[in-house]
Amino acid sequence: MSYNIVPLNELVNQFSRLPGIGKKTAQRLAFSILEQPSEYAERFSKAIVEAREKIHFCKCCQALTDLEVCQICDNPQRDHSVICVVEDPKDVMAFEKMREFSGVYHVLHGVISPLDGITPDKLKIKELMERLSTGEVKELIMATNPTVEGEATASYISRLCKPMGIKVTRLAYGIPVGGDLQYADEFTLARSLEGRNEI
Amino acid sequence: MSYNIVPLNELVNQFSRLPGIGKKTAQRLAFSILEQPSEYAERFSKAIVEAREKIHFCKCCQALTDLEVCQICDNPQRDHSVICVVEDPKDVMAFEKMREFSGVYHVLHGVISPLDGITPDKLKIKELMERLSTGEVKELIMATNPTVEGEATASYISRLCKPMGIKVTRLAYGIPVGGDLQYADEFTLARSLEGRNEI
Repeated sequence: MSYNIVPLNELVNQFSRLPGIGKKTAQRLAFSILEQPSEYAERFSKAIVEAREKIHFCKCCQALTDLEVCQICDNPQRDHSVICVVEDPKDVMAFEKMREFSGVYHVLHGVISPLDGITPDKLKIKELMERLSTGEVKELIMATNPTVEGEATASYISRLCKPMGIKVTRLAYGIPVGGDLQYADEFTLARSLEGRNEI
Repeated sequence: MSYNIVPLNELVNQFSRLPGIGKKTAQRLAFSILEQPSEYAERFSKAIVEAREKIHFCKCCQALTDLEVCQICDNPQRDHSVICVVEDPKDVMAFEKMREFSGVYHVLHGVISPLDGITPDKLKIKELMERLSTGEVKELIMATNPTVEGEATASYISRLCKPMGIKVTRLAYGIPVGGDLQYADEFTLARSLEGRNEI
């Protein structure tokens, strides 16, 4: 190899470790770093380290935050008696974008999947139970993904909570808004028929 | 805005300044940084700053290098009497991947484009002339892109060098290897006919 720029190769390698970034894209991104002012490289570099260092799980709801307790858990105006249980911190962001939910969240950080070795004790279920033990919580909205594992996790948690007198609900299944009936799969269509409402 | 993680937003913003990276992709990449071990974040961050700091233009050929003179210019086994003139440092890499060219390079860092305010003095033409003044160079291969500006730049440099008795050549135009004639545009086809060779 006669032409080999070590720092450039290292940067390309680091970029190509990101998901969905192949060798060619990594090269393009690495070159763009070289073409931009060095202030950008410094800011970018700092942003990476700071995000990784400062962001951790909220000690209450397990969502991502740079504070000890996240802004949602810390907000007295939110309804702390309704907890929406999600799989992933990104789901919290999706819900918050909607701006219609005024309760709080609990992030499980995964779903029960015995085949992958993910048993209930590997999820943040213990932390959820602790939150429920105060007796303040009235409703638990199960918002795990509509997959086999998501369903199983929802019904597992529901079985744990029902004896405590907590109402457990599940997000509605149905045809997506703006979707086309002829492209809906039969399972979704069957669920939307099952869950039909009077108008 | 009730839910706002400052270090995460900063990281998303930095990612979205990269070319071809939109808001959604930037978010996905930022999350992947959080999900990976902190050693990765540190290495990535260091790679960015080091690449930006250490990589500069070779003082001879103006290609990218982390050394004073790049590995190609510094290699006595290469033919220093043939210079391949390219627009961009990435073009050097494309040529080197081919492993068939044993000469050296000169990177112009752009092409003459009066409409964009890029006049010959903004390019590394002066540096090229200095290299030619030693009298060692016998051939100049113009490998600027096959665009109007690329052509104009090639003929501008060619006019400067011809009086010095240097042979100036241009890359061949023609149909790409593995291409399909029916999809070739008429200009390419015309050029490939013009430049036909006896077999």
